[in-house]
Amino acid sequence: MTTSTSRSPSRLPPSSSSSSLSRTETLSLFSLTFACVAVLANTFQGDGEPLIASLALSGVAFAASFAMIRWLGPTLMKAGLKGTDMSKHNRREMPECMGGIAAVVYLLVIIVFIPFPFYKDIVAATSGGGNRDVVVSVVEGVERGRLLHKFPHSKLASYLSAIISLQSITLLGIGDDLFDIRWRHKFFIPAFASIPLLVVYFVDFGVTSIVVPIPLQPYLGELVNVGVLYYVYMASVAIFSPNSINILAGINGIEVAQSIVVAVLLAINDCLYLLTPYPHPATDSHLFSLYFLLPFLGVSGALLWHNWYPARVFVGDTYCYFAGMVFVVVSILGHFSKTLILLLMPQIFNFCYSVPQLFGLVPCPRHRLPRFNARTGLLEPSVTPWTRERQPRGVVAWGLKVLGGLRLLGVTVDEEGRFVETTNFTILNLWLVWRGPLREDRLAMEITGMQMVVGLFGLFVRHGLAQLVFKEDNWSIGAAGV
Amino acid sequence: MTTSTSRSPSRLPPSSSSSSLSRTETLSLFSLTFACVAVLANTFQGDGEPLIASLALSGVAFAASFAMIRWLGPTLMKAGLKGTDMSKHNRREMPECMGGIAAVVYLLVIIVFIPFPFYKDIVAATSGGGNRDVVVSVVEGVERGRLLHKFPHSKLASYLSAIISLQSITLLGIGDDLFDIRWRHKFFIPAFASIPLLVVYFVDFGVTSIVVPIPLQPYLGELVNVGVLYYVYMASVAIFSPNSINILAGINGIEVAQSIVVAVLLAINDCLYLLTPYPHPATDSHLFSLYFLLPFLGVSGALLWHNWYPARVFVGDTYCYFAGMVFVVVSILGHFSKTLILLLMPQIFNFCYSVPQLFGLVPCPRHRLPRFNARTGLLEPSVTPWTRERQPRGVVAWGLKVLGGLRLLGVTVDEEGRFVETTNFTILNLWLVWRGPLREDRLAMEITGMQMVVGLFGLFVRHGLAQLVFKEDNWSIGAAGV
Repeated sequence: MTTSTSRSPSRLPPSSSSSSLSRTETLSLFSLTFACVAVLANTFQGDGEPLIASLALSGVAFAASFAMIRWLGPTLMKAGLKGTDMSKHNRREMPECMGGIAAVVYLLVIIVFIPFPFYKDIVAATSGGGNRDVVVSVVEGVERGRLLHKFPHSKLASYLSAIISLQSITLLGIGDDLFDIRWRHKFFIPAFASIPLLVVYFVDFGVTSIVVPIPLQPYLGELVNVGVLYYVYMASVAIFSPNSINILAGINGIEVAQSIVVAVLLAINDCLYLLTPYPHPATDSHLFSLYFLLPFLGVSGALLWHNWYPARVFVGDTYCYFAGMVFVVVSILGHFSKTLILLLMPQIFNFCYSVPQLFGLVPCPRHRLPRFNARTGLLEPSVTPWTRERQPRGVVAWGLKVLGGLRLLGVTVDEEGRFVETTNFTILNLWLVWRGPLREDRLAMEITGMQMVVGLFGLFVRHGLAQLVFKEDNWSIGAAGV
Repeated sequence: MTTSTSRSPSRLPPSSSSSSLSRTETLSLFSLTFACVAVLANTFQGDGEPLIASLALSGVAFAASFAMIRWLGPTLMKAGLKGTDMSKHNRREMPECMGGIAAVVYLLVIIVFIPFPFYKDIVAATSGGGNRDVVVSVVEGVERGRLLHKFPHSKLASYLSAIISLQSITLLGIGDDLFDIRWRHKFFIPAFASIPLLVVYFVDFGVTSIVVPIPLQPYLGELVNVGVLYYVYMASVAIFSPNSINILAGINGIEVAQSIVVAVLLAINDCLYLLTPYPHPATDSHLFSLYFLLPFLGVSGALLWHNWYPARVFVGDTYCYFAGMVFVVVSILGHFSKTLILLLMPQIFNFCYSVPQLFGLVPCPRHRLPRFNARTGLLEPSVTPWTRERQPRGVVAWGLKVLGGLRLLGVTVDEEGRFVETTNFTILNLWLVWRGPLREDRLAMEITGMQMVVGLFGLFVRHGLAQLVFKEDNWSIGAAGV
């Protein structure tokens, strides 16, 4: 365990404090971009393999957001988008809301990508006078029946609705970072942003029936139409995912790292469906998901580079909302929202664990991030102090004691048994209760690792147990029980 | 002609400087909202007439943006989005970038509207496992063949691409207002925002053939495929329209008023196609256009209320870009971009007239808006001064003299024939050269009136002359030469 007592400035590249790229960085980014553009150009030679094109565009997205995050730092600070890192010896100001830049680059890339997976099916002519004057030929590029190839035209509306939802959350997230919207209002930002997704789901797909697990089928039948409840469910996922990422925050890199882990796990899950020997009914949905996740990994990588300890930029609420919404759109449009919930287990735990403070049973300070000990340079759990006059009562006191006994909370009592302080209810503080003081990057790394392990276990459970309660696992149709 | 020498504070409602609504305003907005929601609910009783629903939602959009513009003023000013009105006696600060709020309300309304014109054509069930497990029935709500009714599902992608373009321009416009992007960069903001529109046009419609005017048909045939040039043309329209509105600016209310005039003229043009006795091939395109224009008129009305002389808010570049882009999406997707160009004649004149200053042939000061004469309270043409040392030369001097002689420029020369000052090259200054000093609202009203007259003439020309160069006018197919 690395517990060096000072920052290691050697990790900072020479140009870290400037807003320009070093020569090495310029060359690397240029080479990456060049290689990606070459690959992209090459896809035109064949049938325009969308998956290859998506990978290449994700490389371009990485390079573009890397450069823009560096260049636009001073501009953002000048416009007042800046913050101070409270867990460092020297509290210098840094640009805030860099997630907005990553999101804008992402959106541009995902828009430019549209022609790769979608083909046109009508060729006609217009006089520019408000109607197609001549429909020359009706169907040109029909579906080729090839795996990993083009989507049917009808999927375009879903793709576009996902873009609108992501754009909405970016717009509202930037509004939040600019205007410092109150907690109880900002909680509903993802709800607004999910409207386009749900509205288009309604007009375009409209499926609200769910398959009943086998044990319940004798009572409910094979299918149950849950109607409007299905939209309530989807809206709940859409509200929860972005907010849950937004509250697992507060130390350098944690927002981006956890998002990258979830994206990687979703991408692994997608790949399971692509590796089946013959086309699986869900292949399209998972290809669709990959097309959204790969560029997300591109821009997030560039952001993590700058936001990892010691951070040189902050990501802002914009990034947390945006990342959470990417997961929402792929899982809702791909119909694997239950899988997403499995992968967000640490976030769900963090939310449930936070409930006593979020709902005011235990006093909630403005910031609950771990406390920086300037002497050791390590993070320690931050605490809620209890005075002699203000002591928890009844069930709350009992609960705090039980949690303390189970080592699910750091509790300090004085000799008379009165509460002196209890640690704040976040997974980051709990981890520090378990592991002792840690340096900021170490904590971020361990939480990220835990998320990865829990997520992989979740995927295993999902594909192992699904066969017990449903007729068959979705990807085992093709992979025959693998 | 009203040329009172002072502001008339009586025009300000009592609550003008506060950020709350007066009781009358609250009651009016509440009644309007209530009425609109009632109408909206009523459309569900029948077949859900989309045009009625669009009108009702536009009323809601007016009320919502009216209230939000009032309420959010202090929030915007706190975030640094504020400006000073230079054409007033007391130069107090006002919230800037209110167009952003209008745009966000507009986008929400246009998204919520989606289910009205589009129907779903597939009912299926999902296990949530990545695929439609059971497709229950394939086609439910088929097109009813009724006029003014539902769109075919294939039009949904166009609608969504328009939303993405409008969201993009809002996002980039807010960026411009926040970061004060340089002129030569911001010129291309609409180009970026038009990418979604053009990309989806490419995969969804892809028509790049144009009907050749009759006199040229012997040489070129009936149709010419202009290929990539058609995209260049569309991109040019997309770049020009928002920028042309952005440079016809600088006095209270002019940005919004000119946009409302263009929107009204486009709506009149759309109605011509809806009033044909039987379904016209272009009816759908023009309904589509109305669905975008009506809520635009709603939010613009609310904005004009606050931005008209004496302005209490500024609209920001966001509004100009946004308004221009609304015209672009309806005219490109409706295939009447030539009509849009006709309706933007004053803007085109203003742009061409500005060229000497935009391209540096004549010095261009930072602000070219008319000069406020504090003594008379009237606006006078602002001028570029020429010193004895710096005199225009050669063709520029000759050009200035010719323009001055034609009364297309205010030119002051001294007794030795040297240039002392010339008015700045904007239509607003030119109008003041023609009409003499005017009060700010009078100038805005006259320019708006001129735009209306020119636009109506343009529409007349378009429907009168089109028959001479094409086989038939697009709407006369149904209206038989009306």
